[in-house]
Formats: sequence, structure tokens, C-alpha cells
Amino acid sequence: MNKDSLIEDMLTTVQTVKDTNPMAGSITNSVTINLVANTQIATGGSAAMVYLPDEGEFLAKASGATYINMGTLMPIYEETLPKTVKALKEADKPWVLDPVAIGIGQLRTDMLKLFKDYKPTIIKGNASEIIALAGLWELEGGVGESQVRGVDSTNKVEEAKAAAVSLAQWTGGAVIVSGKIDLVTDGKLFAESTGGSHFLGKITGGGCALGGAAAVYLTSASPFIAALTAVQAFNVSGERAERIANAPASFQTAFLDQLYKASPKDIASNPFKIKGVD
Amino acid sequence: MNKDSLIEDMLTTVQTVKDTNPMAGSITNSVTINLVANTQIATGGSAAMVYLPDEGEFLAKASGATYINMGTLMPIYEETLPKTVKALKEADKPWVLDPVAIGIGQLRTDMLKLFKDYKPTIIKGNASEIIALAGLWELEGGVGESQVRGVDSTNKVEEAKAAAVSLAQWTGGAVIVSGKIDLVTDGKLFAESTGGSHFLGKITGGGCALGGAAAVYLTSASPFIAALTAVQAFNVSGERAERIANAPASFQTAFLDQLYKASPKDIASNPFKIKGVD
Amino acid sequence: MNKDSLIEDMLTTVQTVKDTNPMAGSITNSVTINLVANTQIATGGSAAMVYLPDEGEFLAKASGATYINMGTLMPIYEETLPKTVKALKEADKPWVLDPVAIGIGQLRTDMLKLFKDYKPTIIKGNASEIIALAGLWELEGGVGESQVRGVDSTNKVEEAKAAAVSLAQWTGGAVIVSGKIDLVTDGKLFAESTGGSHFLGKITGGGCALGGAAAVYLTSASPFIAALTAVQAFNVSGERAERIANAPASFQTAFLDQLYKASPKDIASNPFKIKGVD
Repeated sequence: MNKDSLIEDMLTTVQTVKDTNPMAGSITNSVTINLVANTQIATGGSAAMVYLPDEGEFLAKASGATYINMGTLMPIYEETLPKTVKALKEADKPWVLDPVAIGIGQLRTDMLKLFKDYKPTIIKGNASEIIALAGLWELEGGVGESQVRGVDSTNKVEEAKAAAVSLAQWTGGAVIVSGKIDLVTDGKLFAESTGGSHFLGKITGGGCALGGAAAVYLTSASPFIAALTAVQAFNVSGERAERIANAPASFQTAFLDQLYKASPKDIASNPFKIKGVD
Repeated sequence: MNKDSLIEDMLTTVQTVKDTNPMAGSITNSVTINLVANTQIATGGSAAMVYLPDEGEFLAKASGATYINMGTLMPIYEETLPKTVKALKEADKPWVLDPVAIGIGQLRTDMLKLFKDYKPTIIKGNASEIIALAGLWELEGGVGESQVRGVDSTNKVEEAKAAAVSLAQWTGGAVIVSGKIDLVTDGKLFAESTGGSHFLGKITGGGCALGGAAAVYLTSASPFIAALTAVQAFNVSGERAERIANAPASFQTAFLDQLYKASPKDIASNPFKIKGVD
Repeated sequence: MNKDSLIEDMLTTVQTVKDTNPMAGSITNSVTINLVANTQIATGGSAAMVYLPDEGEFLAKASGATYINMGTLMPIYEETLPKTVKALKEADKPWVLDPVAIGIGQLRTDMLKLFKDYKPTIIKGNASEIIALAGLWELEGGVGESQVRGVDSTNKVEEAKAAAVSLAQWTGGAVIVSGKIDLVTDGKLFAESTGGSHFLGKITGGGCALGGAAAVYLTSASPFIAALTAVQAFNVSGERAERIANAPASFQTAFLDQLYKASPKDIASNPFKIKGVD
């Protein structure tokens, strides 16, 4: 629990991604698929999106890390998602799960239940999603009855701490709870990262983009460092973009620009706090 | 037929949406799905998009109003669309239909025929689409043989007046005919709203976004007021954006920004005329 | 092989498109579908995207030219793509193939093999994709074992010359190899067009957008002229956009704006060289 070594690790992660252009494949929703790809490219990564089962398997193996976002499910996902997570497990490759819209529809519920045993390396959600996923997986801090309203959170980050910890302890990876202050935990440590912009909640896909960025960093770092790096990158870029733009659409452009321009030092030195769990 | 009371209603509608962040779910095309979501958020609403049958049913019930746009149909829509409109009817929830690309493909024709009995609360189309839909539904003013060319109109708004009136009288809701001057009718009144920008026709999805915005306002207003509010919001924001941007892509950014910034007064006081139907 | 007559043909092509607003339908990936549509509109064309088999057939016949991009394949494409290329052949309509992600998944491989006999009028790819397609079709210059890594090229344009020539000679159309210097060939001539921007590789869909633009120009020109016009339009617009923007997202906006503003003369007079093959 040395903050300096976390900063050092973030510096290395961002630089490695910029130097090596690692591929992070995605199965992600069509609403924000373009933003996710452009976000991943802005960080220095390479994006590839697929729908079909054998393509999911291929990407799982070919990518340094994979991003699975549960928005806009299609019928073929009933086949694609199980095959992809199986391929990830066989190849021992890390992946990021975004349980967006948890609680809506049978296929989403079935897939999210299945994923429990496949232990996503990073789970990213807003407070309501994290609580609902812990509930679905019958872990401490979770609530069986989802309080998710569509894609928006009705809970505060603070309320999701116990769920985040139990999810991270179950997976052995890291959990991001996005909100006004973003929380990252590996089940032992909490990092709280500040900054960002209220405009990230006034465009569609701010959360999806964060998951996509986490997958890129996960090609080159431990789950906790990758998760924290993504959150820090978004917070510094969001804050800078809000100085440039005063409305959501110009903010989105400025945000991607700032993410592209953010140096390893910019990202690693964004303010964050570290505490032990308990 | 009091113009002041319409203005008053629009003021209330815009403010209510900004205050309550109502959810309007969508089944919409993948070309412009991101723009529709960002438009809905810019008005103050919340967006959620789905493809699957049980998710369509869920959103129909959970949303204040639903937007169904007929672009880029997928095979599963054969099941999703009937279930969704049935759920809307059972829950007595309002919805907006955008019959984009009417006349192309069997599934679109079958679904649009089916929708006749489910009476969409607001129908939004360009002149050719409105004429073609009235034709498909064998209503006055309609033309059986579609004159639609892909997604563009080959008819003028004026030519679609009779079709718009008969559609509105059939559904008991409102109809928007988008064009240089936008027409809104509830079958008894015509409102003609001016402003906007030629650039709205030089980006993809200007029409889809209008339908999405109408669905948000429909969570909080009568069909006629919701339709008119959406059209007015687009006209004032389009006009302002064209003062900022001189080409389509920067216009789109400026347009969403202006839509976000537009106050209830800005929207309600955009120029429009009211006339009785005959 | 008269450079002046090529310039004259490009002037006519760009002006014709601006004057006639020709429709170019697309079956294209969902990551960049919005950018493709906006690019096609910015050139002066009209866009329409579909997924379903009978809609593909309809668009093939109704469009002046069609764009088929192999990204994000869906299960229904197994039916849609063969029917669409058959309709294109029957109607003797030109089309553009973008073999993006060649080598990933069985359906993509099956479809790309099938397309050999349907002879796409223009083939557009990066160097690795062009080499891989020639390999798949067992033509000279091709390599059976794909060296494609997701959507990015691992080969240089120069290395793809032989493959491009043999593809163009097989189809009787034109081939675009996109890269730092863009190569266009009809199997007899090489055109090398310069300009553009490194930022076109730092957004998703620069290549898809180029294919979409080529389809628009192909409604109004020979394959070689259409391909060269698209490349020239992108090079002049990319160069100008890079003077305006210094990061990827604002670059994308500036690029579309510049494409919209580019005059026939701007496009035709962008620097290019012509050489004979051999």
C-alpha cells in the first residue's frame, strides 16, 4: 500500500500502451460502440468489435484483454458470450465486464449469472449496477432486487463499497464503481479518484468508454492498476475538457482530444487517495 | 385554439423534463442510435436502447414513453416489435413511431401494417413517409405506391397535409411532418414551426433525433404539445447552431450543445403559427 | 494514361455527385456506420444502411452503387450478403468491397470467397487486407496466411502492389490500398495520391468512410476514377483538417467539414502521380 509505487505503475502502464498499441477486442453495445473504439484508440490501444461466436473466441485469444459490455444484447449473444468467456478462461486472458442494464431481460440475467464462474478481471459499473451484480451473485453487499433504472444509477458510490469489495474478493481482480468520486478496489485497497466532469453523465457512453479504456490498460497492467489508470485518465481528461467546452457534444470532442493528449504523468498524478478495506 | 396556452404548455413540458429526467426507451436504427441517445439526454431525458423481445416489453412498461424507429431492422424485430407495441397498449403508455424507409422490405411493411391497430401516439416522418404510411393504412391523403427514395423525401410538406390529418384522426394522437417548415397536427389544428437549419438535412439522423426528442417530451405532455415542443426545440437549436458552424459535422456538435442549452422560454417562443384544419 | 484527362474526369465526378445527390446503399459495420453515412452525405451523396436480405436486394437495385463492409458481421448476413451480391450482378450495378478483418471467423471467410465470382467493382483495404484477399482468392501477390491483426495493417502499401494489380485484373475494376501514400490501380495504371493526415488512423472508421465515399463516386464514374476521386477527396480534406485540429476527435469533425467544403477543383488538384504497371 505504497502510493508512490502505484503512481510508478501507472506511469509505466500508460507509456507501455502508447508504445505498443495493444489490441483490446470488444463485444459491446451499438449505442456507444463508436465512442468505445475511439476512446480505446485515444489511449494508444487498438480496437476491434465483433458479434459472432467464433469471432468472439478469436478476439479473446488474439487480444491482450477483452471488453464485454452487456448493452443492446442480440440473440446470437446467447452463443457468443459463453464461447468468448470460455475462450478467455482457456487462454488465461484478462477481461473487463460492464454489467450495464443488469436486471432487464432474461438473456442478460442468464449471462451475468454464468459469468460468476468465469471471474471477470475487472468489473466496472455505477453504484446500482455493482450492488445488483453482487446481489445476482449472492455476495455480501449485494441486493437481490435490482434498483437499476435503465442505464442510470439510483445509488451513491458509498453505498456500493461492500458490494465492490465482495465482488473483487470473489474474482481476485478489481472493481470500479464510477460516480462523482470513482472508487477502485481489489478487495484489499480502496482508491478514490477525483476530477472528471458532470458532462460525462450528459453524454451517452461515458461509462462504456471507461470500461473500454480499462480493457486497454489491462493488456499491460495488473487489474487494480489498470482500473485505477483508466479512472485517472478519465478524471484528468474530463476535468480538462470541461475547461474547454460548456455543453455535452463539444465536451465529448474535447474529452477524447484530452484523453489522446494526456501524458503518463498527467494521468498518474491526478489526485487520488488510498485506504485499506476495513 | 389559444396560442398563449400552447406556449404555456410548452414552457411546462420543457421544464418538467429538465427537472425529472424522464426515461424514454427506444428501439431504433444503428446508424443514428448514438445521436438519438445524446439528443434525448440533451433535452433532459434519459435514454435506453434495446433489441430483444422481453427487453422491449420491459422498456415499454418502465419508460414514460417509447420511441420506435424502423431503420436497420434486424430479424429479431419480427418478435420484438409486436411484443413491444402490445406491452405499450396494455400499459396504456404513449409512443412515437418513425416509419423511416417505409416501402423497403417485407418485415418493415408487415410491422407498419400491424401498428395501425396499435395507434402510435405521435407519428413523425418527412412528407413522403407520411403520405406512404397513410397509403399503407388506406387512409385519406395516402398514396399506396410509396414515393419514398431510401430515407429522403421526394414530396413537400404541403403535399402531406391531408395524410397527416387523416393519420392523426385515426390514432387520436399527433403527427409531425418534418421539412423546411415543420407541420404538427392533431387532426384538428395545424401548427407550423419555422427556423432550423439546412444542415439538419446534411447529417444523418436529424429526423431520428427529432423522433427521439418527441418521445422524451411525450413522457410529460399531450401528443400535440410534445410533438410541437420537439419541433420547436429543434428549430431554435438548429438556427442557433447554424450561426456557430458552417459545415455539417461542427453543426451537429453545435446543435446538440444548443439543444442542451435551450431554455423552456427559448423553445416555447420560437416562431410558429396555428391554424384550424379546414 | 493522360493525367489531364484524369483530372477532368474527377472534376466532373465530384460536380455530378454534388448536383445529383446519388444514393449509395451500404451493408456496413456498426462501429463506424454513422461516420460512413455522414461521409457519404458530406460528398453530396445519399446514404441508406440495411441488414436484412430483401432490403439488401432492394438497395442493390435502387442504389447507383453499393458499399459492402465486412466488419461486425451478424448471423443474418449469411443470407443477406449472397442475395445482395446476386442482385448487384443481375442489375449490373457496381459495388465497393471493404474486406476488413479478413481472416477472422468462418462467415467472413466464406463470404469473401464467394465474392470472388461476383467481382467487386472497387476493392478497398489496407496493405495487409489486400494481400490477404489476393491470397484467399489464390491470385498472384497474395499470401494465404493472413497477416492481418484485427483491423490494422502490418504491411506497407508497397508490399501490396502485386496483390492489388492481380485483384484489379481479376475483377476488371479498381483497387485502393490505403496507407501513408494511397495507391489506386485498375491493373494497368497506378495512381499514388498523397496528403491526408496521421489522425485518419487515430479515429475508428477512416478506412470504412473511404470505402463509403468511393461507393458514392462510383455511382457517377468509372471504377478507377471513382476510387481515385475518393482517395483524393480524403487526402485534401485530411490535410486541411490537420491544419485546424491537433487531436483525433476534433480532427474527425474538421475532416467531415472539410470534405463537405471541398470543391471539385480542390479534390482533382490534390497531388498524385500516375505510372504504368510494370
